[in-house]
Amino acid sequence: MKPLETSTVGIVGLGLMGGAIALALRSEGIIRTGGRILAYDRNHDTLALAQAEGVIDEGMYSPEVMLAQCDLVFLCLTPTTLLRFMESQMTAFRPGTLITDIAGIKGSIVAAIEHTLRADLDFIPGHPMAGSELGGFIHAKSCRFHGKNYILTPLTRNKPENLVLLKKLIYRMGFGRITETSAKEHDRKIAFTSQLCHVIAAALIDCEGDTEITRFGGGSFEDLTRIAMLNAPMWTELFIENREELLQRIEQFEGSLAKLKRYIAREAEPELEQCLQTVRERRAAMA
Amino acid sequence: MKPLETSTVGIVGLGLMGGAIALALRSEGIIRTGGRILAYDRNHDTLALAQAEGVIDEGMYSPEVMLAQCDLVFLCLTPTTLLRFMESQMTAFRPGTLITDIAGIKGSIVAAIEHTLRADLDFIPGHPMAGSELGGFIHAKSCRFHGKNYILTPLTRNKPENLVLLKKLIYRMGFGRITETSAKEHDRKIAFTSQLCHVIAAALIDCEGDTEITRFGGGSFEDLTRIAMLNAPMWTELFIENREELLQRIEQFEGSLAKLKRYIAREAEPELEQCLQTVRERRAAMA
Repeated sequence: MKPLETSTVGIVGLGLMGGAIALALRSEGIIRTGGRILAYDRNHDTLALAQAEGVIDEGMYSPEVMLAQCDLVFLCLTPTTLLRFMESQMTAFRPGTLITDIAGIKGSIVAAIEHTLRADLDFIPGHPMAGSELGGFIHAKSCRFHGKNYILTPLTRNKPENLVLLKKLIYRMGFGRITETSAKEHDRKIAFTSQLCHVIAAALIDCEGDTEITRFGGGSFEDLTRIAMLNAPMWTELFIENREELLQRIEQFEGSLAKLKRYIAREAEPELEQCLQTVRERRAAMA
Repeated sequence: MKPLETSTVGIVGLGLMGGAIALALRSEGIIRTGGRILAYDRNHDTLALAQAEGVIDEGMYSPEVMLAQCDLVFLCLTPTTLLRFMESQMTAFRPGTLITDIAGIKGSIVAAIEHTLRADLDFIPGHPMAGSELGGFIHAKSCRFHGKNYILTPLTRNKPENLVLLKKLIYRMGFGRITETSAKEHDRKIAFTSQLCHVIAAALIDCEGDTEITRFGGGSFEDLTRIAMLNAPMWTELFIENREELLQRIEQFEGSLAKLKRYIAREAEPELEQCLQTVRERRAAMA
């Protein structure tokens, strides 16, 4: 691939994450004179706004026209939309295009892509561990990358030089740590750190109907339920797509919750205090 | 009681919250020339440090000597320590002293105090909804009051002028909203917004042994488990003391979690998406 600075980057889906990536490419000076940032989105108002703000060089109303110009493509779509897009646009990519994505699950995407990707294209699956409870391009500025984690689940067929280039790009966007792992391991870990947490936040809100309860909030409740402001269609897709791993994680969590509940019900002070002490130390080791 | 500015305030227990209250009394100029901030703590190094830093006027090594001088006393102790202190020091308070506390449960404290309090003393139970996962006086600066909630569960015998004075003091310390309610209602609500959240955070850490899992963290996991850095003896006491309300809340939460799990297992997309949408709207209404 060409040097990043003079490459043409195409962003498919200019929502929160697509917008945040465009902003980072622009504000960090990653794409310079000679390079271009293009974007395709169903919402033409978003494209017009992003172009007017100078975040992208040009909003594209046809994916084919955009893909014919791109050296690097970021697919910022949900898993099913991504797979539909790849299927319908496979012939539109320029030969040798480096493609990456941002979807929150990787197994089903990798499985589908490995069998259908054109031989001359290079697809490196990725997952930036950043986000915001506020959705859409207009909140892209609230989605910060600085110091955040980024997961890559490279395919054996990926070109080493493309992987090097993508990692360089990720660090230049501000991310603090890149972890390379398999799609399966990604889905197993993410079921815990992300999906289980969203399910818990949703369950916490689901079980309390009184919206005035926040008068009794001291920060814990607010912290645990901020992510309950979730994008319902996207998370429905992620939960169901990764259901095997997620259900296992929910059951592990239910087991730990049941143990704590038992200690409390039996007034088992020493066991409860020991368990909380172990939890405290483990959480400290995670920091 | 005397005007606040020239009162002598005694803080029993100069930990995170006692320290934060002393800091607020001092930095907000609530206690001025003529008034004094005294503190009693088992840890004499803490008293020496707080005095050296000018946060308190004098560290007291005997509760009796301190209480004999105080117009207003903040009991910053855990529930059982508080009840033991009141029992052993009941005769030491000056006639007419206004006493308040900060304990995270109110029912058992109110029940005990109502029967044993000297007729000339005025005890107004309170709960500042602030804190920090870092404990102790040295972290008192990290415990911010600005805009936070404060719950009061006044007794029918409280003097109206003392209640007015305490509320004025609370707002001057920076708190944003005071809610007056019964001890029972406090314990019912707090079981949800505070204790259940701490149990969930503890269970989340309990069910995952891999401390390297944070490589896959994107903020949700960190937000949900920050409070797992809990003070084990204090929270053991709070959980067990308020176990009836807490167990009921855990069961409500388990019910909502089981519902979500069922939707996911059955791949019930429309039901799951509808539930997440309702959750999103309810959480937005709580903000």
